[in-house]
Amino acid sequence: MNADEFRRRGKEMVDYVADYLEGIEARQVYPDVEPGYLRPLIPPTAPQEPDTFEDIINDVEKIIMPGVTHWHSPYFFAYFPTASSYPAMLADMLCGAIGCIGFSWAASPACTELETVMMDWLGRMLQLPEAFLAGEAGEGGGVIQGSASEATLVALLAARTKVTRRLQTTSPGLTQAAVMEKLVAYASDQAHSSVERAGLIGGVKLKAIPSDGKFALRASALQEALERDKAAGLIPFFVVATLGTTSCCSFDNLLEVGPVCHKEGVWLHVDAAYAGSAFICPEFRHLLDGVEFADSFNFNPHKWLLVNFDCSAMWVKKRTDLTGAFKLDPVYLKHSHQDSGLITDYRHWQLPLGRRFRSLKMWFVFRLYGVTGLQAYIRKHVQLSHEFEFLVRQDPRFEICAEVTLGLVCFRLKGPNSRNEALLERINSARKIHLVPCHLRDQFVLRFAICSRTVESAHVRLAWEHIRGLAAELLGAEKE
Amino acid sequence: MNADEFRRRGKEMVDYVADYLEGIEARQVYPDVEPGYLRPLIPPTAPQEPDTFEDIINDVEKIIMPGVTHWHSPYFFAYFPTASSYPAMLADMLCGAIGCIGFSWAASPACTELETVMMDWLGRMLQLPEAFLAGEAGEGGGVIQGSASEATLVALLAARTKVTRRLQTTSPGLTQAAVMEKLVAYASDQAHSSVERAGLIGGVKLKAIPSDGKFALRASALQEALERDKAAGLIPFFVVATLGTTSCCSFDNLLEVGPVCHKEGVWLHVDAAYAGSAFICPEFRHLLDGVEFADSFNFNPHKWLLVNFDCSAMWVKKRTDLTGAFKLDPVYLKHSHQDSGLITDYRHWQLPLGRRFRSLKMWFVFRLYGVTGLQAYIRKHVQLSHEFEFLVRQDPRFEICAEVTLGLVCFRLKGPNSRNEALLERINSARKIHLVPCHLRDQFVLRFAICSRTVESAHVRLAWEHIRGLAAELLGAEKE
Repeated sequence: MNADEFRRRGKEMVDYVADYLEGIEARQVYPDVEPGYLRPLIPPTAPQEPDTFEDIINDVEKIIMPGVTHWHSPYFFAYFPTASSYPAMLADMLCGAIGCIGFSWAASPACTELETVMMDWLGRMLQLPEAFLAGEAGEGGGVIQGSASEATLVALLAARTKVTRRLQTTSPGLTQAAVMEKLVAYASDQAHSSVERAGLIGGVKLKAIPSDGKFALRASALQEALERDKAAGLIPFFVVATLGTTSCCSFDNLLEVGPVCHKEGVWLHVDAAYAGSAFICPEFRHLLDGVEFADSFNFNPHKWLLVNFDCSAMWVKKRTDLTGAFKLDPVYLKHSHQDSGLITDYRHWQLPLGRRFRSLKMWFVFRLYGVTGLQAYIRKHVQLSHEFEFLVRQDPRFEICAEVTLGLVCFRLKGPNSRNEALLERINSARKIHLVPCHLRDQFVLRFAICSRTVESAHVRLAWEHIRGLAAELLGAEKE
Repeated sequence: MNADEFRRRGKEMVDYVADYLEGIEARQVYPDVEPGYLRPLIPPTAPQEPDTFEDIINDVEKIIMPGVTHWHSPYFFAYFPTASSYPAMLADMLCGAIGCIGFSWAASPACTELETVMMDWLGRMLQLPEAFLAGEAGEGGGVIQGSASEATLVALLAARTKVTRRLQTTSPGLTQAAVMEKLVAYASDQAHSSVERAGLIGGVKLKAIPSDGKFALRASALQEALERDKAAGLIPFFVVATLGTTSCCSFDNLLEVGPVCHKEGVWLHVDAAYAGSAFICPEFRHLLDGVEFADSFNFNPHKWLLVNFDCSAMWVKKRTDLTGAFKLDPVYLKHSHQDSGLITDYRHWQLPLGRRFRSLKMWFVFRLYGVTGLQAYIRKHVQLSHEFEFLVRQDPRFEICAEVTLGLVCFRLKGPNSRNEALLERINSARKIHLVPCHLRDQFVLRFAICSRTVESAHVRLAWEHIRGLAAELLGAEKE
């Protein structure tokens, strides 16, 4: 395909994309296909000679779309939102064309420098403490990771390296394995599964601390675990506090947990994957209070800040903690500016070597929405979740299962779990809306997450009427 | 921005992208900017109210482009190629619009199923042994990782889990730390720095085995290291063999190393990040002989197979080795089809949870080029590197430093390293072409990698004349 054909096909694709998103409401949000549906529709091998573009675009509707879960449908209320906006898509087109691999400053200076500045912009939007910003000569700074899972793992590995070196300095004979055997990381029992995974990958123990009645990690429970483990000869080194848990969007008590970590000399990583975007609104910023105690902080603009996946924003107070954990410098990656204090080589901040020019998406989105536009977007979602909460509370057959703070409502039919499992089964089988469940303690709970950029009050009300209708059928059938 | 404005701006962006790539030859391949150039050009905070699209697109030329290293310029001969093609860019637009996060089958069945089938297509293009393919009921299969670094790390972690479980089965009292302390991974002294990093992250020893005169890992050196370590009570568990090393594109001797790993029960991971794309050509397929001994195999279509970054293709013979290492199933990620044998939940195959619909890029590229078109592309690059090699060999002041097999030529001026460092300095300061160096043993060597999709014989000849001219100046100045 030459440039001329790309001009033509690219414009057709722009229209296809706009048509898809404008018409998404009419598509069934969750597909009907069964596992293995696609293979019989596609030849077993790649074609020897080129197919035409028409062949492919026809196959998109015939083969791909019937198997797509439409995450941007206004009837999609599952998981958490994943960002989608036109400015981000425009930026991604430019990112694809430049196509640089920005692992070092020299590999494409603009790619590195725009990222550093955009992470400062975003940090200032959140009113992050100055220590997390790069500025002109800061010790901290931000980096775009691919996902919150990677950010947690990177933080854990940096903390592991730091504590190991510290202990080896005081006890030079100590092996890494001897240290690792004793290291313990902590998170609340509500933390995301990626935290447990980071522990597994890092080869350290991870302990789940019981959360309180509001599903929050509290100082007392953490302190108790730390004391018990220290008494047993173990070495606490890492705590993950979650702001906006996946199950029910609860908030660990940072103002309590932070000082404990600080006193104990334990690395505190704050994971606000979903909720972080809301902190750009002054009325939600208090939820981030206590971040000043953290060593690292992360949230996903690719969830709720209109920057298409992937864009997971991570800040550290001491960049040398990260680069110290990963730095290896083969000659083919060295460059002449390397030792300047102004230089950031992001390959030392992350797991992969390669990286795309992802900060273009932030730049386009922040400028084309403005902070005001982004705040309005967050507020609309929060308002819609409160509207759904209000509707649920009007119906005495239902109950709300956790405080509604941002865009997630956890609810259920009063009564046994089996009833709620049956309700969810009816909801997802009907295919009109899509939800996923969670467990809160021993309760099976339905999660209603405001997700789509285009979701409006009318969709929320329709979804609620639909759920009520299915609930009535279910309760009717129970009585028969 | 609404759909109408996106239709207009998207089409403008398509033209901008085509203009950029059509005009890239006229841009200086390596930028003039100094570290810190960008920050003063950009406000310190995001705008409160939206900027216009015109503002942004003007700033792209004013602020971004002056700091871009143009990886797709036909005068870019640094690192290794990174893929860029129009079909991949079209697919990425569609990927952005669908914007699903395909961590499980249910999260978007098409996203998972197309990936499995595309990985089979690609495996068949390479004539991978059937054991690596998913097919309808295979035990193996492929997954798209973000980078070869991640693939190596994932393989190492899977191998670590496998050997630990095996040892714990026979010695139930053994702790993970006690095992990890004794585990040893191996790679040649020419392996990529990401292999050493994987060892660091995984918390295991990694030993560099001396390569032979052709920079290849041989059985004898590996066997010797294994015997020595076993005698010392250590536990060899993982070997990385590289096909196409980063420094000089040498090939570890897989037909020797494979049987050793097999006999010793050690996991063999084959990293062909750059070279793998060439194996779609029958005349280069022999370089992959011995892959039948491997447990996992990886290469980067995003380097040399026209699929834009990121797309790192990894296959395993036993998918349960990967999923066994990572599987954690919180209820919000469970779905009703989960226990079916047909289901693949790719989140268990990788480090991050989230993932884009990257297989669309493979589908578009494979179909719009056809296997014949892809082979022609590889062959053109190999031919150009041999043309450059031929030119270098005509000039008695220069020498070729390693066998030229694919698209990389390692060369230098005869004489001291300082002379070659000075030559490289002149080349990169002149900004007409861009190269990076490597060390081969104690020699400082220049790497000339055929990179751009649009590079032709004329560019290679111009580059060589330019290098010769700078060498003549340098040698003249030496004599003065």
